[in-house]
Amino acid sequence: MSSEPPPASTSTEELEADLSAATISKKQLNKEARKAAKAAKVEKAGKVEKSQAEEVDPFAANYGDVPVEEIQSKVISGRSWIGVGDLDEAAEGSSVLIRGSAQAFRPVSKKMAFVVLRQSMSTVQCVLVASADHGVSTQMVRFATSLSKESILDVEGIVSIPKEPLKATTQQVEIQVRKVYCINRAIPVLPINLEDAARSEAEFEKAEQTGEKWVRVLQDTRLNYRSIDLRTPANQAIFRIQFQVENKFREYLSSKDFIGIHSPKLISGSSEGGAAVFKLQYNGQPACLAQSPQLYKQMSICGGFGRVFEVGPVFRAENSNTHRHLCEFIGLDAEMEIKEHYFEVCDIIDGLFVAIFKHLNENCQKELETINRQYPFEPLKYLEKTLKLTYAEGIQMLKDAGTEIEPMGDLNTEAEKKLGRLVKEKYGTEFFILYRYPLAVRPFYTMPCYDDPAYSNSFDVFIRVAFWDLAHHPRHI
Amino acid sequence: MSSEPPPASTSTEELEADLSAATISKKQLNKEARKAAKAAKVEKAGKVEKSQAEEVDPFAANYGDVPVEEIQSKVISGRSWIGVGDLDEAAEGSSVLIRGSAQAFRPVSKKMAFVVLRQSMSTVQCVLVASADHGVSTQMVRFATSLSKESILDVEGIVSIPKEPLKATTQQVEIQVRKVYCINRAIPVLPINLEDAARSEAEFEKAEQTGEKWVRVLQDTRLNYRSIDLRTPANQAIFRIQFQVENKFREYLSSKDFIGIHSPKLISGSSEGGAAVFKLQYNGQPACLAQSPQLYKQMSICGGFGRVFEVGPVFRAENSNTHRHLCEFIGLDAEMEIKEHYFEVCDIIDGLFVAIFKHLNENCQKELETINRQYPFEPLKYLEKTLKLTYAEGIQMLKDAGTEIEPMGDLNTEAEKKLGRLVKEKYGTEFFILYRYPLAVRPFYTMPCYDDPAYSNSFDVFIRVAFWDLAHHPRHI
Repeated sequence: MSSEPPPASTSTEELEADLSAATISKKQLNKEARKAAKAAKVEKAGKVEKSQAEEVDPFAANYGDVPVEEIQSKVISGRSWIGVGDLDEAAEGSSVLIRGSAQAFRPVSKKMAFVVLRQSMSTVQCVLVASADHGVSTQMVRFATSLSKESILDVEGIVSIPKEPLKATTQQVEIQVRKVYCINRAIPVLPINLEDAARSEAEFEKAEQTGEKWVRVLQDTRLNYRSIDLRTPANQAIFRIQFQVENKFREYLSSKDFIGIHSPKLISGSSEGGAAVFKLQYNGQPACLAQSPQLYKQMSICGGFGRVFEVGPVFRAENSNTHRHLCEFIGLDAEMEIKEHYFEVCDIIDGLFVAIFKHLNENCQKELETINRQYPFEPLKYLEKTLKLTYAEGIQMLKDAGTEIEPMGDLNTEAEKKLGRLVKEKYGTEFFILYRYPLAVRPFYTMPCYDDPAYSNSFDVFIRVAFWDLAHHPRHI
Repeated sequence: MSSEPPPASTSTEELEADLSAATISKKQLNKEARKAAKAAKVEKAGKVEKSQAEEVDPFAANYGDVPVEEIQSKVISGRSWIGVGDLDEAAEGSSVLIRGSAQAFRPVSKKMAFVVLRQSMSTVQCVLVASADHGVSTQMVRFATSLSKESILDVEGIVSIPKEPLKATTQQVEIQVRKVYCINRAIPVLPINLEDAARSEAEFEKAEQTGEKWVRVLQDTRLNYRSIDLRTPANQAIFRIQFQVENKFREYLSSKDFIGIHSPKLISGSSEGGAAVFKLQYNGQPACLAQSPQLYKQMSICGGFGRVFEVGPVFRAENSNTHRHLCEFIGLDAEMEIKEHYFEVCDIIDGLFVAIFKHLNENCQKELETINRQYPFEPLKYLEKTLKLTYAEGIQMLKDAGTEIEPMGDLNTEAEKKLGRLVKEKYGTEFFILYRYPLAVRPFYTMPCYDDPAYSNSFDVFIRVAFWDLAHHPRHI
């Protein structure tokens, strides 16, 4: 074990940890302080032992802290690191180099210990067994287990397959460690313990029954230390799913001759009547943040682009605290010319969503399972060809189920949720399109139906309890 | 010719045209007024003639204005429109339906006329010849040529190959028109004539020599009527190239295990010291618009994402009028962990730019040629493996060429431009990386070189006279 202090470093972990002292709860601080004192005691004991042993450890080169100049772009060694998620049984017997965060330490004896290394959603068990044949000393075992959680380690070792399936790691192989180096030490006490942050509600409930007491990481702590909370497998998976949704959105629409655009966000007036707008000064002139790319998408269609989409931030200064209101979100917007009928738009929306659902099911199984472990959910039910109901049909379903609804009025959230449940029961889908809304409940620019001006060429898309509002904007080419 | 007024419509063209009267120049207005008077005269003449002929035209069903209810999503006919850009010699003899904007009318006689239809970057010549065999009357010829420019037309006809190559259209086939319907009439006089807006500087110079007088569409007119100016082939191509740059950026980085993120744009403080920031009120608290996704990209790396990119708006309240300053632009940002050496980042940047250059050359020839016609440019010179020069080597090249430069100071724009010229002459590339900058001219967080703290682990990327600033941010995993 090195007696050096952790190397001077600009790592964000350290900066955040400095901040943490000021804000984490007193109770937690006390607990952490006791832990730290214990760790210091262990370290001190180690130090004495080490100073005696150091001289005689012939394998001292196989472990230790990497000096700062080594991480200052000194050499290009040509070594290659394998991803933790790529470690599988095919690699059995081969020597690998991995870099990851130390998620857990399980010392077994002076001669043996386990270290769990994590990289994104994947974890692997590293086994240290003191053995002169393998260049592994008891000092090396002690060094590895004395490090703080979330420290960054380089581990070299041989891939082996354990006799029993591993429950605590995602990868079903182990690394028989030959070398271990610490690239960057985390401070001993972090404001969030990742194992705590990754537990599901069911695990907490089970623990309560058995009398076990686990720390809950609350939302404010998660947000205050976002870069640590982001490391939970579920968060890693959520961001990857978001990325894949955007990818498929772009890919599907591109295949239908849409082109991607980026419209201005700093504009001279509000984008939508009624909705609250963020105002600011632009070189001495009043300006607004765009509440929608609507106008610019329409100008693009008038400008001859035929079909456009945009993925970008949308700003709404709404003082509402519901799951349907956000002051800033990423909008996935599309606009297209219509040749004859607004069902051309419905068809694109239908194909787009179904393509995204399939893409996630086919390509993001690992991500979906990872999220499911912490936040259980049922797979979305959808049909190959999306169900389309008229507004009148929807009203009738609600009436038949005993809900009194004004047939030409708007659906409130409660009615929408109920309709969602009725549709799921009757048609076995949680994704459907409701069309031909009453004209009176849609924006002024909505095209009336040719056969009945009380109704309009418009539709909404429902997915579980949430829904998207997709107006039919009456333009042709 | 129909005596009906143009159908009531919410088309953006009309709304813009209404606005135009208030802002276009007096001179232009006078000119346009004369044109309009002439058009009205012609129309009146036509009307008289038509009222006599209408009764006896057995082919009246083959042309006319489409009534408004027809474009109100009345029917799904199952017809399919072919893209103008897809019309080629393989289609000879087949019957096609196309929809496009009427860009030019060339009446030849009472019995014959040409109409050029445009869709995005593509134009095609439609030929009308009065013939009872083909259901084309002289009235139909007159109807087609009496429409205003930029009206939206549906044309049905037979594809034929002309004897002489066509100079005025992109497509090398003609349409022998059988039916022509106007979906939406543009107002008679638009503030921008597209043929004027699409001319190159060279064409204007040539015209000046021959004494011809062409109208120049100036920048303010273009911006005031952006949705019309967007229709020029060059603008159509520029937006498509932008889209392809973003596509390749995403595709290349995704293939290198980057994931796309979207970071907040409404933040509580300025992103970068020094740079001017847009300020606003966020629910009673002061807030800023993000000048860079820098901090959030770094938090993502600390959060375990390994490699991330972001495509999104960047806001800088800079009161500078240079081609290097914009108050709002779309940033293509990337951030990655480094295993050993910041050259790992250089390699990604190198591969990324070369991949984009190749992608555009291989997939956007039509777009590049279209831009080149209006704004001539030389193809970019670049190497398969990007040239990397140290800052010291760059300084030496400038010195050898007689430019006195402070070796540890920053390069000004003039010096950068000169260096770009010298590198092009010596190495035959306009794309190169300059690295190992003096530490003193880089931001405080730049990592010093391990062997000389006067220099830093940083680099800039130069492409022609413009350049990108890509600091090496000293983090490892």
